[in-house]
Amino acid sequence: MNKLKVAIVGYGNIGRFSLDAVKAAPDMELVGVVRRAESVGNKPAELADVKVVSNIDELGKVDVAILCGPSRSIPEVAPLYLAKGICTVDSFDIHTDVYDLHEQLDAIAKKNNAASIISAGWDPGSDSVIRTMMLAMAPKGLTWTNFGPGMSMGHSVVARSKKGVKNALSMTMPQGAGIHSRMVYVELEDGYTKEQVYDELKADSYFAHDELHVIPVDSVDDCKDMGHGVLLERKGVSGATQSQRFKFEMTINNPALTGQILVSCARAVVKQKPGCYVMPEVAPMDYLPGDKEQLIRSLV
Amino acid sequence: MNKLKVAIVGYGNIGRFSLDAVKAAPDMELVGVVRRAESVGNKPAELADVKVVSNIDELGKVDVAILCGPSRSIPEVAPLYLAKGICTVDSFDIHTDVYDLHEQLDAIAKKNNAASIISAGWDPGSDSVIRTMMLAMAPKGLTWTNFGPGMSMGHSVVARSKKGVKNALSMTMPQGAGIHSRMVYVELEDGYTKEQVYDELKADSYFAHDELHVIPVDSVDDCKDMGHGVLLERKGVSGATQSQRFKFEMTINNPALTGQILVSCARAVVKQKPGCYVMPEVAPMDYLPGDKEQLIRSLV
Repeated sequence: MNKLKVAIVGYGNIGRFSLDAVKAAPDMELVGVVRRAESVGNKPAELADVKVVSNIDELGKVDVAILCGPSRSIPEVAPLYLAKGICTVDSFDIHTDVYDLHEQLDAIAKKNNAASIISAGWDPGSDSVIRTMMLAMAPKGLTWTNFGPGMSMGHSVVARSKKGVKNALSMTMPQGAGIHSRMVYVELEDGYTKEQVYDELKADSYFAHDELHVIPVDSVDDCKDMGHGVLLERKGVSGATQSQRFKFEMTINNPALTGQILVSCARAVVKQKPGCYVMPEVAPMDYLPGDKEQLIRSLV
Repeated sequence: MNKLKVAIVGYGNIGRFSLDAVKAAPDMELVGVVRRAESVGNKPAELADVKVVSNIDELGKVDVAILCGPSRSIPEVAPLYLAKGICTVDSFDIHTDVYDLHEQLDAIAKKNNAASIISAGWDPGSDSVIRTMMLAMAPKGLTWTNFGPGMSMGHSVVARSKKGVKNALSMTMPQGAGIHSRMVYVELEDGYTKEQVYDELKADSYFAHDELHVIPVDSVDDCKDMGHGVLLERKGVSGATQSQRFKFEMTINNPALTGQILVSCARAVVKQKPGCYVMPEVAPMDYLPGDKEQLIRSLV
């Protein structure tokens, strides 16, 4: 079997868990990890046998680049790989900007005969697929997405980037019916107040729309737990029949699930025609390894 | 907008609920209902304005035939429509035979430049998609599908076909961890015993593998409720991270959901390349009407 040649680009939380998922995949070969030049020499133990480079060209042939950098870097980073004809997957999580990224990368991917699956995490990502299925099953009605309680990696990264913040943990708290509040636990820099941090956060689109609480703590690390969850609910109408009820619920390690979904999407992306896709545009069976007959017999 | 021209073939329970879903679809036009010749004259009130024929050729151009006859008729019936270049959808529910039907119809569909989505109900069907997604999210682990309590239409039809049975209702009872029993409520013909019916049922592959109870009742109709449900559970591993937990649960009117899924698949089938598909092979967004930009913005 020709194994899929996969590179991991960026080696933070998501990169590390993507590594686990690539290693566990029977049909993939990790060709290397791409890091910033200043991090290449600094090899953690688990990368001892892995090629770590600052430029993907040093890895030879690569089928898919799993982009594990922050969401805001994706619109700049993904085109670099697509331009080389390398397929990309990412977990871009800025919901309001997904469509624009889709259009941007679609043109670049088509031009370079490559494919890209964007926003391939759990929300956006697998939750988007569940919401799509619920709508197909009950076209009229309401869907509520309830997150947490759990740490939002995206929000925590943004919170840490703010003036006066040494370290931060942003917790997403479900209030029911798709309403959430944000509890942001911060280690403050000397001379800064929680009110200043609150104002900085409120000015950022990541935090502007939800109830927000900023709570100073001595150690953010002591508060951290990567467990997360979601409850998707739909109440709707199938044909003319009211009150059809659907629920999807999960309790998961957040970066582990994101890493796994990225890796499943890495498998799927090479099966797509050139262009850019979100997960609801991908046939779910494409995420799985193995023989079509066996998959149909076991899943359908 | 060119509306999709849809015909309903067979007018039992599923046919009636499919009619509701076609009528509610903004992008579809019901061109008619195909029934057995002897039923064509016998028009129920809701078909007053609908063309009812015994041969689909009488309906002019048809894009999709929604096959609502019993599962066992599908391998014979679907090829007749595919041979005319008409796409088909069905809710064929004999899990063990799905792959063979897939292969059979795939060849016929390709030859006639048509497409077919088979086993497009909720199980097999949308549940198959959820199982696929759960596997993509946690490749190692266990999935349990727990049905009911609810009436199995397929099993009830089979039970009614047995000697000594005037009428029957087969209830699926969840025992947990994917184990079920069958409670079959029967009106017996004179001179037959519940033991005879039990033996007849046990000899049928539909009933051979589950705990079975046959219970004589005066009126099967008085026991009927079309509510059904399912609980899909998976406990598995994402990458190297154990104990990821996933649950999908629904409480639904069974034929209404089946009818709706058939109709959503009717929309999707014309978007596929020639061939035969099960639902995990179809991009979920294809089930929905409307503009791609708007769908991505609202679902992802």
